[in-house]
Amino acid sequence: MPVLKKTILSGMRPTGKLHIGHLLGVLNNWINLQDEYNCYFEVADWHALTSEFASTKQMSANIKEMAVDWLAAGLDPEKSVMFVQSKVLEHAELHLLLSMITPLPWLERCPTYKEQINEIKDKDLSNYGFLGYPVLQAADILIYKASVVPIGQDQLPHLELTREICRRFNNLYGNVFPEPLHLFTTVPKLLGTDGRKMSKSYNNSIFISDTQEEAAKKIKGAFTDPKKMRKGDPGHPDGCPMFMLQNIYSSEAVPGLRKDCESGVLGCADCKKMLLENLSKAMEPIRERREKVLAKKDFAEEVLREGTKKAEITAKKNMAEVREAVFGRNYV
Amino acid sequence: MPVLKKTILSGMRPTGKLHIGHLLGVLNNWINLQDEYNCYFEVADWHALTSEFASTKQMSANIKEMAVDWLAAGLDPEKSVMFVQSKVLEHAELHLLLSMITPLPWLERCPTYKEQINEIKDKDLSNYGFLGYPVLQAADILIYKASVVPIGQDQLPHLELTREICRRFNNLYGNVFPEPLHLFTTVPKLLGTDGRKMSKSYNNSIFISDTQEEAAKKIKGAFTDPKKMRKGDPGHPDGCPMFMLQNIYSSEAVPGLRKDCESGVLGCADCKKMLLENLSKAMEPIRERREKVLAKKDFAEEVLREGTKKAEITAKKNMAEVREAVFGRNYV
Repeated sequence: MPVLKKTILSGMRPTGKLHIGHLLGVLNNWINLQDEYNCYFEVADWHALTSEFASTKQMSANIKEMAVDWLAAGLDPEKSVMFVQSKVLEHAELHLLLSMITPLPWLERCPTYKEQINEIKDKDLSNYGFLGYPVLQAADILIYKASVVPIGQDQLPHLELTREICRRFNNLYGNVFPEPLHLFTTVPKLLGTDGRKMSKSYNNSIFISDTQEEAAKKIKGAFTDPKKMRKGDPGHPDGCPMFMLQNIYSSEAVPGLRKDCESGVLGCADCKKMLLENLSKAMEPIRERREKVLAKKDFAEEVLREGTKKAEITAKKNMAEVREAVFGRNYV
Repeated sequence: MPVLKKTILSGMRPTGKLHIGHLLGVLNNWINLQDEYNCYFEVADWHALTSEFASTKQMSANIKEMAVDWLAAGLDPEKSVMFVQSKVLEHAELHLLLSMITPLPWLERCPTYKEQINEIKDKDLSNYGFLGYPVLQAADILIYKASVVPIGQDQLPHLELTREICRRFNNLYGNVFPEPLHLFTTVPKLLGTDGRKMSKSYNNSIFISDTQEEAAKKIKGAFTDPKKMRKGDPGHPDGCPMFMLQNIYSSEAVPGLRKDCESGVLGCADCKKMLLENLSKAMEPIRERREKVLAKKDFAEEVLREGTKKAEITAKKNMAEVREAVFGRNYV
């Protein structure tokens, strides 16, 4: 008898092309989950609206770029369902139902909510929808009856809220949803080429879609240890953004590299050369897949469209059960 | 060339069978609007969830009772679209989109919200969905591009909020929605048989569905002027719940009735007898229609089902326009 696979839901807001931080922190994880789990990967465009409601016209292009990155990285449409949130109206329906049973203080006290309201000043976040972000997230997870959600440790408060909303629903209307568990993902330490956090808006990212030449140029110009002016100077690898990449892409050589950097034998130019070689090796299959994806016209869009159809089937089935639980059988 | 009719949206929360206050204050108004306007009358079951989320199993029966009352009162499925809100998922979608552009303070400062949170203590209203009540209302109105909304004066703050949300949407995404105007409805003064506000929960209502005998019994036992103990005593018609009904059902006779009540010539028993006669005359066609409605099995449900299909067609058409306005043409 086949063992029933558990269902996973995870998603990304479509902010455009992805950098290697996304690849190492999220996508590689997703790819590893594809065989063991029944995976739903969501393009969270409604979630993006919570902060991007005033600049929506870029969304469609962003989604396409992101989908190409997903496929290039190795997500497999034969194994996983990749879909667009806003195309499955049932998410909005469940969000509305869950909004009726979600106490306001649960949302107002959510640490990430308070943090973002205090910290992000260049965007208008004081909207009803932004407060309800975790309710929409709960709907996304519960509608597929996902029992596992891969998250970084910082997202635990949100998943805790989903679990509380799930329990409240089940208490009121009967046991419809499994309580989703977290699956902590390890996010490797990574900095941008200028030593700050890698972020598209800082213009310091190595993108998944960068060509060999683009990546080479970025790495050649990247910050290293500021105290190591030239080969021969003793280096301090631990704060160096390039050494962080070596940890990932040249992991076997790292003990030797560390010694030679600290002693001064290894200069930054040689270190970067080695990094670039190993990064290139790692990116090779991704670049090949990207070419194949782009060779078929509208392939990424087609994958999303097909995935959305599949997601919709599950969402419709589960929402029929939800409606019956809430309103009873044979509702008008 | 035919003049295009304006669209009206109005709705009721399905709280079960309706009393004559609903008939006089809402339904008769709706019936008068049916010819002049393109009318959408909504069974607002999602709205009911904001306060009734813990007692949903009665909802289906309540909707059926209410629909029979609507038809008995004279709403005509050939003229008006009667539909169930929760069956048109696009309402939830628009609600979600509008939630992203609705500033929290608009909702928190809404006078009816503050009032209800302070006054209603027996129900748990501190939920996210209850705060968003006006956003859902805005979605209901805007999704049909209704340009007229019949309301009582007390509902003006809610409609004002819809107008503000409408303006914000149009400013951000282009002129999609007409700004809906109010159409003030006169609500006749009416009290229950015990002199308090007529309300199902006070057990003091004359229902639209009451038989002649039930209505007679209620009127016979009803409160009148407490200072008028017997015929001959001078009466004070202005606070008398039965005299309020005379104002409606025996309006032509009212000047004489007032004089005779005040002088004491008219006793309460005779006054009630006259009221009952005129009430019966007024209820006669409604009772006849009710019999016809109930004679056809599931007729009221069928009306709602057909109406919901019609509502869905308009909602889908308008949401296609909304999506294009928000996300652009050819969105993924």
